Amino acid sequence: MPQYNPPIRDTRFVLDHVVGLQSRANLPGFENATADMVDAVLEEGGRFVAEVLFPLNQVGDQQGCTRHPDGSVTTPEGFKAAYDQLREAGWMTLGAPEQFGGQGMPHTVSTAFEEYMISANMAFAMYPGLTHGAIAALLAKGSDEQKALYVPRMVSGEWGGTMNLTEPHCGTDLGLIKTKAEPQGDGSYAITGTKIFISSGEHDLTDNIIHLVLAKTPGAPDSSKGISLFVVPKFLVNEDGSLGERNALSCGSIEHKMGIHGNSTCVMNYDGATGWLVGEEMKGLAAMFIMMNAARLGVGLQGLGVAEVAYQNAVQYAHDRRQGRALTGAKEPGEKADTLFVHPDVRRMLMEAKALTEGLRALCLWGAMQVDLSHKAQDEAERQLADDLIGLLTPVIKGYGTDKGYDIATAAQQVYGGHGYIAEWGMEQYVRDARIAQIYEGTNGVQAMDLVGRKLAQNGGRAVQAFFKLVGDEIAAAKGEEAVADFVGRLERALNELQAATMWFLQNGMKNPEHVGAGAHSYMHLMGIVATGLMWLRMARAASGLLAAGEGDAKFLNAKLVTARFYAERILPDAGALRRKIEGGAESIMALDPELFMAA
Amino acid sequence: MPQYNPPIRDTRFVLDHVVGLQSRANLPGFENATADMVDAVLEEGGRFVAEVLFPLNQVGDQQGCTRHPDGSVTTPEGFKAAYDQLREAGWMTLGAPEQFGGQGMPHTVSTAFEEYMISANMAFAMYPGLTHGAIAALLAKGSDEQKALYVPRMVSGEWGGTMNLTEPHCGTDLGLIKTKAEPQGDGSYAITGTKIFISSGEHDLTDNIIHLVLAKTPGAPDSSKGISLFVVPKFLVNEDGSLGERNALSCGSIEHKMGIHGNSTCVMNYDGATGWLVGEEMKGLAAMFIMMNAARLGVGLQGLGVAEVAYQNAVQYAHDRRQGRALTGAKEPGEKADTLFVHPDVRRMLMEAKALTEGLRALCLWGAMQVDLSHKAQDEAERQLADDLIGLLTPVIKGYGTDKGYDIATAAQQVYGGHGYIAEWGMEQYVRDARIAQIYEGTNGVQAMDLVGRKLAQNGGRAVQAFFKLVGDEIAAAKGEEAVADFVGRLERALNELQAATMWFLQNGMKNPEHVGAGAHSYMHLMGIVATGLMWLRMARAASGLLAAGEGDAKFLNAKLVTARFYAERILPDAGALRRKIEGGAESIMALDPELFMAA
Repeated sequence: MPQYNPPIRDTRFVLDHVVGLQSRANLPGFENATADMVDAVLEEGGRFVAEVLFPLNQVGDQQGCTRHPDGSVTTPEGFKAAYDQLREAGWMTLGAPEQFGGQGMPHTVSTAFEEYMISANMAFAMYPGLTHGAIAALLAKGSDEQKALYVPRMVSGEWGGTMNLTEPHCGTDLGLIKTKAEPQGDGSYAITGTKIFISSGEHDLTDNIIHLVLAKTPGAPDSSKGISLFVVPKFLVNEDGSLGERNALSCGSIEHKMGIHGNSTCVMNYDGATGWLVGEEMKGLAAMFIMMNAARLGVGLQGLGVAEVAYQNAVQYAHDRRQGRALTGAKEPGEKADTLFVHPDVRRMLMEAKALTEGLRALCLWGAMQVDLSHKAQDEAERQLADDLIGLLTPVIKGYGTDKGYDIATAAQQVYGGHGYIAEWGMEQYVRDARIAQIYEGTNGVQAMDLVGRKLAQNGGRAVQAFFKLVGDEIAAAKGEEAVADFVGRLERALNELQAATMWFLQNGMKNPEHVGAGAHSYMHLMGIVATGLMWLRMARAASGLLAAGEGDAKFLNAKLVTARFYAERILPDAGALRRKIEGGAESIMALDPELFMAA
Repeated sequence: MPQYNPPIRDTRFVLDHVVGLQSRANLPGFENATADMVDAVLEEGGRFVAEVLFPLNQVGDQQGCTRHPDGSVTTPEGFKAAYDQLREAGWMTLGAPEQFGGQGMPHTVSTAFEEYMISANMAFAMYPGLTHGAIAALLAKGSDEQKALYVPRMVSGEWGGTMNLTEPHCGTDLGLIKTKAEPQGDGSYAITGTKIFISSGEHDLTDNIIHLVLAKTPGAPDSSKGISLFVVPKFLVNEDGSLGERNALSCGSIEHKMGIHGNSTCVMNYDGATGWLVGEEMKGLAAMFIMMNAARLGVGLQGLGVAEVAYQNAVQYAHDRRQGRALTGAKEPGEKADTLFVHPDVRRMLMEAKALTEGLRALCLWGAMQVDLSHKAQDEAERQLADDLIGLLTPVIKGYGTDKGYDIATAAQQVYGGHGYIAEWGMEQYVRDARIAQIYEGTNGVQAMDLVGRKLAQNGGRAVQAFFKLVGDEIAAAKGEEAVADFVGRLERALNELQAATMWFLQNGMKNPEHVGAGAHSYMHLMGIVATGLMWLRMARAASGLLAAGEGDAKFLNAKLVTARFYAERILPDAGALRRKIEGGAESIMALDPELFMAA
């Protein structure tokens, strides 16, 4: 019953006018991303996910994954066939390097496709998504031998990949992990321990699964400084790339979760499994952060992707369902009732979803471009700037993006009234699926602490200053433009609130770091509002410029201006409240003994 | 694995110091509510729900209800036995009138017990909850004969009750209902139609189920003005009260829902079922609103009840789970990590839950007292004031209370990290259960429109003026008190924002009613913040007074002052942002053609 249409026009508008993809044709890999090529990716990729993956979304939720007595896991009906099609059509290889069999397209372009895949079927999209994270870690830290052995077949999708971090007693605090890696004298290690919450840990989609596993070597410090990263394949791989014997690892059980039922979330048991060190011993945390940073941006994209499909369905329902009359008198007197669209409060929810999904799409694609630039820009200063900006905003895209993704999915469900609570309509699944994105890859509280505790202060605050300059410069440049004058004034006020909050942290964090921790979550949202506001400034300026030039679809461009206005009037005002909350500090938060929470 | 402890000390504090229960002993029925009696209700009632109902909460979610081929429905394992115990112990009769076999206790006291029952098992609590709503409608609008025939056995819990409003094509817009009532010439009617989303529609807990059904009589206007209310028992009742033949109604199916699986949500088919008019023909909507208003307060209480149990478990988890170190250095260096309690962002979530659950508890019990006073206060002016206040605040308690209930349940789940997403921990069930309260008995958007579209303007704004005076007077009275000076200043600013928003509606609503509709939801939250702020003012003043007098538990009272400060610093600031959103008006919300939402 639900539906999904890839928002191709909007993606294209963002790539052209916010991200400036075409102006980057001089960068390596970007020469392939011609306008025609990008159009083909968006249109054919969009059609593929809508036709092949989306119809499996509800069935995946209803069936979930099944673990058999031998420890094997089957995915929901149709997943395997769809995965084969995905692989054969080459959609998994878009952004991977050409030397390993990929198409070498900009990350910006593969991110656009990935959003569509998530919207169509988030649980399914996690299988290739985890593989991409594992590839990124192997490319960055693996030996040439490891890259040659594993990466080509992961790029092609013949093999899957996973990240094994969490254990029953620790997730955030990885220094506590107990999994052991004993050297076997032949260069390999015997890995022993239990990992939980392993997404795509065991399944029937690929011939092999390449697990990346955090473990401690003998004598290593019993803290995060003692962690090493290992590659531990489900089947050992012979030198010629053929599969060897089954490794001593298995799926002990599948978790019963709130959502993403189509993805197998496994307890993985390593019983002296054979693994090899990736990168240097006791440098596992750094290697892991390569996976994590890519994964966090991917999770931010999940917030957007699920919000988008939920929003689209709410729009359709508001258009179809007739209930009540417009406050200004019947809009369609010939019908027994008007559509939900006439009701301002329904529109409020839809406009909020529209303003945030379009804003987050721009932010995610802009962020993907910073990833590209951080690797490929031609001068060092530009690479560093891009790296600073995406480092700063990764926790914002993850934390703010997924908090808003959940809010939007919830509001979209609300548009359906009672029907939204009924499984067959599909809306409640979006809420359940969206919920995990706030939790995994570091909870949003952890993102907030990463932002204020690490990213703000790094390199003497270079990144946040660069961000302030970026927003401030674009505000200054827009000041003469009448069409965006009101927007610019409001965005400037929001930026001022963000700068004031940053200053408050500087002044009070030295006295007591808990003042910073207590405001971290509000600060993450405040920066999310300003960053998304910058995207809306760009979109509004582009729209008014195109309109003035008589170019483009006037209705679409006018809608951009209206939505920017909504963003300014209805979302930017939260900036002031967030600043005031931050300035509340830590005292009332930290004052009470735990026991005073426990017996009301 | 989850746990629940009734918050008896807090309930007692609210009854004594916010609601002033003991000072009302001169009102009819209140003479029974002595301090000892209330203590006994809270303690024994609390123990009962914790020991009997709470253990069935997770099993109820997992098993759900089962419809058998003959249309009968069985509730989850243990529900029937627990219901019998509830009935035998007399917990269902607390607030019912003595002449019908009830205990005639104040509504304020039965509301306190009901919160506990909801926390323990929301899906279960809906069975007696719906019966209470049906009793209220019969008492208000039924004939003496109908009251005598049905009410005593509903009060005792031998029979259940339901509300049948929604149909597949209409929920909010009841004017569209198609169910027909044909007079049979003997005073009865033949009821034919399909009702959906009927909570407790069919089950195995009671010998009979008394359905209250909205339907249209022949020739009645095809609008909300043509609706009549009928009593349609599952088994016809003989004059002596014994059960007669099975009526022509049945459960066609059970809905598959996001949550409250333990409650049977039924499609009910009426196939010429025999029913009798309740009250006057075509006055069904008014009769229904008696049920609805009681039910809306009950749903607000669901927001609180689920939030409370979710919060309690998050507190326990934060106390037990060790992860990371305090920002100010290890709190327990002998352990491998500190507890979650040391982290400011975890505390932020717990303090927010604490401030809101305690605030909403006070607001719900204060509201219940207004219900009591509206019936029982000795002078007419006091009855009218109470009726005005609870009429105004019913949509706020429902809408704001359940929006916050969902937010709190979500935050409590967040405290658990990945474990919160796993079913066995029980936290994700609270989120799924809490979600329905924002949707049913009128979505929260409908509540917001009831507030701004009806309640604000009624009787020339008498109710809202009374509310402003109430808050303003208590602010003025507190102004000399140093312990609450900061709080009072901040609450006064929030009240000013609310008054300014009200004025903005007055000035702009005449020009365009959509300006009011567009701000309705923000206004409902703004009023919720101020109303809950008034409760915190009362709690803070009471706490500081008791501390000064050397009375009470100093730790508990100091915690009240700290939590009030948190409320002022972290929740009241939203008032300003909400006002600014309201002042954004309807233009950007109503400007776009529906088609511009549909193809991004």
